Amino acid sequence: MSVLVVGSIAYDSVETPFGKVDDSLGGSALYFSAAASLFGPVNVVGVIGSDFDTSKISFLKDRQVNFDGMYVDSGKTFRWGGRYHKNMNMRDTLFTYLNVFESFKPQIPEQYRQTEYVFLANIAPELQMEVLDQIEKPKLVVLDTMNFWINGKRQALEEVIKRSDILILNDEEAMDLTDEPGIVSAAHAIIKKGIKTLVIKKGENGAVLIHEDKFFFCPAYPLSRVVDPTGAGDGFAGGFVGYLAQQKDHSIDSLKRAVVYGSAIASFIVEDFSFNRLIELKKEDLEYRFEEFGAMTRFL
Amino acid sequence: MSVLVVGSIAYDSVETPFGKVDDSLGGSALYFSAAASLFGPVNVVGVIGSDFDTSKISFLKDRQVNFDGMYVDSGKTFRWGGRYHKNMNMRDTLFTYLNVFESFKPQIPEQYRQTEYVFLANIAPELQMEVLDQIEKPKLVVLDTMNFWINGKRQALEEVIKRSDILILNDEEAMDLTDEPGIVSAAHAIIKKGIKTLVIKKGENGAVLIHEDKFFFCPAYPLSRVVDPTGAGDGFAGGFVGYLAQQKDHSIDSLKRAVVYGSAIASFIVEDFSFNRLIELKKEDLEYRFEEFGAMTRFL
Repeated sequence: MSVLVVGSIAYDSVETPFGKVDDSLGGSALYFSAAASLFGPVNVVGVIGSDFDTSKISFLKDRQVNFDGMYVDSGKTFRWGGRYHKNMNMRDTLFTYLNVFESFKPQIPEQYRQTEYVFLANIAPELQMEVLDQIEKPKLVVLDTMNFWINGKRQALEEVIKRSDILILNDEEAMDLTDEPGIVSAAHAIIKKGIKTLVIKKGENGAVLIHEDKFFFCPAYPLSRVVDPTGAGDGFAGGFVGYLAQQKDHSIDSLKRAVVYGSAIASFIVEDFSFNRLIELKKEDLEYRFEEFGAMTRFL
Repeated sequence: MSVLVVGSIAYDSVETPFGKVDDSLGGSALYFSAAASLFGPVNVVGVIGSDFDTSKISFLKDRQVNFDGMYVDSGKTFRWGGRYHKNMNMRDTLFTYLNVFESFKPQIPEQYRQTEYVFLANIAPELQMEVLDQIEKPKLVVLDTMNFWINGKRQALEEVIKRSDILILNDEEAMDLTDEPGIVSAAHAIIKKGIKTLVIKKGENGAVLIHEDKFFFCPAYPLSRVVDPTGAGDGFAGGFVGYLAQQKDHSIDSLKRAVVYGSAIASFIVEDFSFNRLIELKKEDLEYRFEEFGAMTRFL
């Protein structure tokens, strides 16, 4: 079952205590599709500038990622620069050059319009809505967002939430969206907004799935060294949605396993800069780590 | 198998966003024994002032908690006052009056000296060492501490760690003890100090067991409302040690379940002020919550 992602394609410049990279491959749509393509085909919709070196994404093309919806615009590719602190939960954005992304209007190619699994990466809620308007009867819509839209485009975002099946966000965003002081009360408040399933990511403290009134907790894989956290969230979403699409099933049991696959993929991404770890990642590595999550949480 | 705890017996004055209590029952030895006594007999060693109302601990006596090692000193009972913020991870200490606790020298009664399970609650490392010197061949020594001793009595603490089997501390303390930036690298560094098993408590983010090179993660029970976190850590330790003593087994599987029992008891403690929730807690309630932790973490 194929998956559609609409999001950014970028060049990132990232500095962490373990080194730095300049103009390396980045963007939510690419991290998502690198992860989701471990489970099945992925269709990407996004925009690049005329400076984009498409040979850099050939490894994704080899993995059933389809770029028919990747438009080339005159101008430069979206660029983001950031510096992570010793505590990797903290980062400073050094620059954000939207470039061609500024005027991005997602056009869903005809052949993608019946995609059943849709991931709306972190873009403006109005654009997310335009994507949904172009999809015929999606089976599952998974939504990402960020503080910028929560605080600046609250109403539009709430509309998109109502049309989505699953919302993925981090702990701070969950509290921002609800003005609740903790993630449990925030989760209950978000469920009340009219979405059945919620995933709250807590960085090194793992992720929580809330489905109706049930909670499921998945830890973060215990790494001694996080080299670069960039892309972990989108990779998580890719593993999560990719697994669900492959299963064609959204029962609570599948949702739980999807969270674990997402967490496992995120744990690989942060082991190296950019896509370095994902490029070489084998499905067997992922399955092995999935089993390790079992051993690290099972007690009965 | 009986358990020995050496720690504080106190009157606490606590203010949280949900209310306040003055001079309510508190102290590490009491929270620990209220929890551990759900699994079997507990022997308490501590000191009270002549102002202490012993009728307040009759509920513990009814539950196989033995107070032969509770000495009455002339003067006032140890008092602590604190105020929790809206974010319950933050608290201000309003006052600490050591009173009779200031000159406390733990005397282990003859009949306790062969106790096989020992919990050294958070007291000065030199006193913890004196306790160990009075115990004949303990089977399992579990150690608690705090930043105050980590920073002020590092060397004495490191000696006690070497003589203990399991160290329980929170995430900040683990990082302080090792100068590592994250809990995974901190855990590895502590294991290198010569202790085989470690439990790192992360408050609302649960607890991690590290046993040799294995990690086990237990979430915090998802509560919408934490009324008063006081005593949660000592109650955790009580559930943890109480369960191990009952099992007479410290295999990794028992250690995992001990962490879950500890987490379950802590989750009850924080539902109300002081011992209010523990007084009425039934073993069945605990077993039910233990099973809920299974449902919230199982995915295979």
